[in-house]
Amino acid sequence: MPIKIFVTGGTFDKEYHELDGKLFFKKTHLAEMLSLGRSKVEVDVKTLMLIDSLDMTDEHRQEMLRQCKSTKADRIVITHGTDTMEVTARMLGKTIRNKTIVLTGAMVPYKFGSSDGLFNLGSALAFVQTLPRGVYIAMNGRCFKWDNVKKNRKTGVFEEVR
Amino acid sequence: MPIKIFVTGGTFDKEYHELDGKLFFKKTHLAEMLSLGRSKVEVDVKTLMLIDSLDMTDEHRQEMLRQCKSTKADRIVITHGTDTMEVTARMLGKTIRNKTIVLTGAMVPYKFGSSDGLFNLGSALAFVQTLPRGVYIAMNGRCFKWDNVKKNRKTGVFEEVR
Amino acid sequence: MPIKIFVTGGTFDKEYHELDGKLFFKKTHLAEMLSLGRSKVEVDVKTLMLIDSLDMTDEHRQEMLRQCKSTKADRIVITHGTDTMEVTARMLGKTIRNKTIVLTGAMVPYKFGSSDGLFNLGSALAFVQTLPRGVYIAMNGRCFKWDNVKKNRKTGVFEEVR
Amino acid sequence: MPIKIFVTGGTFDKEYHELDGKLFFKKTHLAEMLSLGRSKVEVDVKTLMLIDSLDMTDEHRQEMLRQCKSTKADRIVITHGTDTMEVTARMLGKTIRNKTIVLTGAMVPYKFGSSDGLFNLGSALAFVQTLPRGVYIAMNGRCFKWDNVKKNRKTGVFEEVR
Repeated sequence: MPIKIFVTGGTFDKEYHELDGKLFFKKTHLAEMLSLGRSKVEVDVKTLMLIDSLDMTDEHRQEMLRQCKSTKADRIVITHGTDTMEVTARMLGKTIRNKTIVLTGAMVPYKFGSSDGLFNLGSALAFVQTLPRGVYIAMNGRCFKWDNVKKNRKTGVFEEVR
Repeated sequence: MPIKIFVTGGTFDKEYHELDGKLFFKKTHLAEMLSLGRSKVEVDVKTLMLIDSLDMTDEHRQEMLRQCKSTKADRIVITHGTDTMEVTARMLGKTIRNKTIVLTGAMVPYKFGSSDGLFNLGSALAFVQTLPRGVYIAMNGRCFKWDNVKKNRKTGVFEEVR
Repeated sequence: MPIKIFVTGGTFDKEYHELDGKLFFKKTHLAEMLSLGRSKVEVDVKTLMLIDSLDMTDEHRQEMLRQCKSTKADRIVITHGTDTMEVTARMLGKTIRNKTIVLTGAMVPYKFGSSDGLFNLGSALAFVQTLPRGVYIAMNGRCFKWDNVKKNRKTGVFEEVR
Repeated sequence: MPIKIFVTGGTFDKEYHELDGKLFFKKTHLAEMLSLGRSKVEVDVKTLMLIDSLDMTDEHRQEMLRQCKSTKADRIVITHGTDTMEVTARMLGKTIRNKTIVLTGAMVPYKFGSSDGLFNLGSALAFVQTLPRGVYIAMNGRCFKWDNVKKNRKTGVFEEVR
């Protein structure tokens, strides 16, 4: 059974718009990143949305929940903005117990050269293949359970709550 | 206990020498890669050698074996050229059973922009944190046991032997 | 006599701030770019300001004018945001007639990988060494006189006015 | 009249072959580089050969000479390996006097991220638009006449002979 990858946007997929100098979403770079990583993991990618995680509403999260439940895959990676990744992880973690779900993202857009995105994607794909059922966040090379993780706003680093 | 990372060279760390147009080893890029990945995994990096894995002799491998045994760490990542990675994995796998050891490498030098190195490093660090004791190769986003892996010379892809 | 390079900021020197996801100025990348280009042109770099050219006031331009007049160099490159580059060029062009001044910039930040900055810098340095006295804009591989150039807002391309 | 660009190969266009770890020529990256530079210079690109300049024979150079003579363009850029760039420049310079020809190249392949290629291409295109008739080498941001230039083998830098 292929691993399901749900794309939701986040810094990961942002690009620089050279006419107005703003960041925007054009398309996901996930396929390009998997190709760069020479990944041979069997995956099935589906873009659910392409938004900044600060713009995520309850509806967006309900949609993610529905998708995670309805897919036949029992191993799922979700690419997600880092700002509210912990919120989505908690929502999913409280509900879904029979699948392994790993959320990951990036601090710098993949297209900007200095991105952590490829590293995070590599670790998320590895964690989702090896971890027991549950919902996790994979950032900074580490893996956190959904009920014990927050992003430190000052450092940009993910860490345990307790 | 920090994860031990043994650097042995391989394509990972090769650079382009602009005066003679040849590839060579100057230094490892591992610290730079961990920094790019914003890794917060506790690691202890030691460079054992910086060589092409086609140039690896039994002595080089004995040195790796000694180092894997003598380190107090029970989780070890080894960066290694891909051409003989399976040889080293078999040698270590036959001997070491009480540690989790993950070998990884790259098809393209990290410095060349189009490298799979960062992806592989992310996955290797994730695998070494989650897999049970044993010796593994992490390439192409996948993980292989030491006794069931070979590099397909035609495609450059790692795959199961049987 | 070295070529004087005045840095004023612009997209050229913008960076991505990974904590707030905004673009900002930290420092100029000019020295890094000259080094990447293996430039052996004798230059003397001075940072006058690091601002978006949309934020440039008359005072900023008066400061540029003073600096262009007071430097002993008779060949000057100015790095500048593209949005009001033509305004500064006109102001300088009306006043300074005894020096060769070339303004250049970038549509995408140098740090973002997909930047035109290095190309533009190479062309600006070549134009400033070869063109007669006057004030010019070097963008898109081309060179424009100060009184016959505008940025096409729809395409982002510099073109003649008439 | 468009500027003619003759591609002959050189480090500029080399790529890393990930199966055998060697450098090779697959195709020219010139169009990609012009696109990255957002160049709007009218050009007409023709690939004459894709070889290392150490492998260039008299026949190769005679072919270049023929092409430079027969094109209607009177402004020509030639991309060329740096090792024998001065040899080709001398050969062309002794014969062609009614056109402006600029040879340029790179110390590091364009695909390797750390290349001077984009900078050199920008400067070569600027020099060819502004310099009087004659044959020149554009490297290191500078421009050299065909009869007064050599590559310093120790530093990799182009310099005057006298």
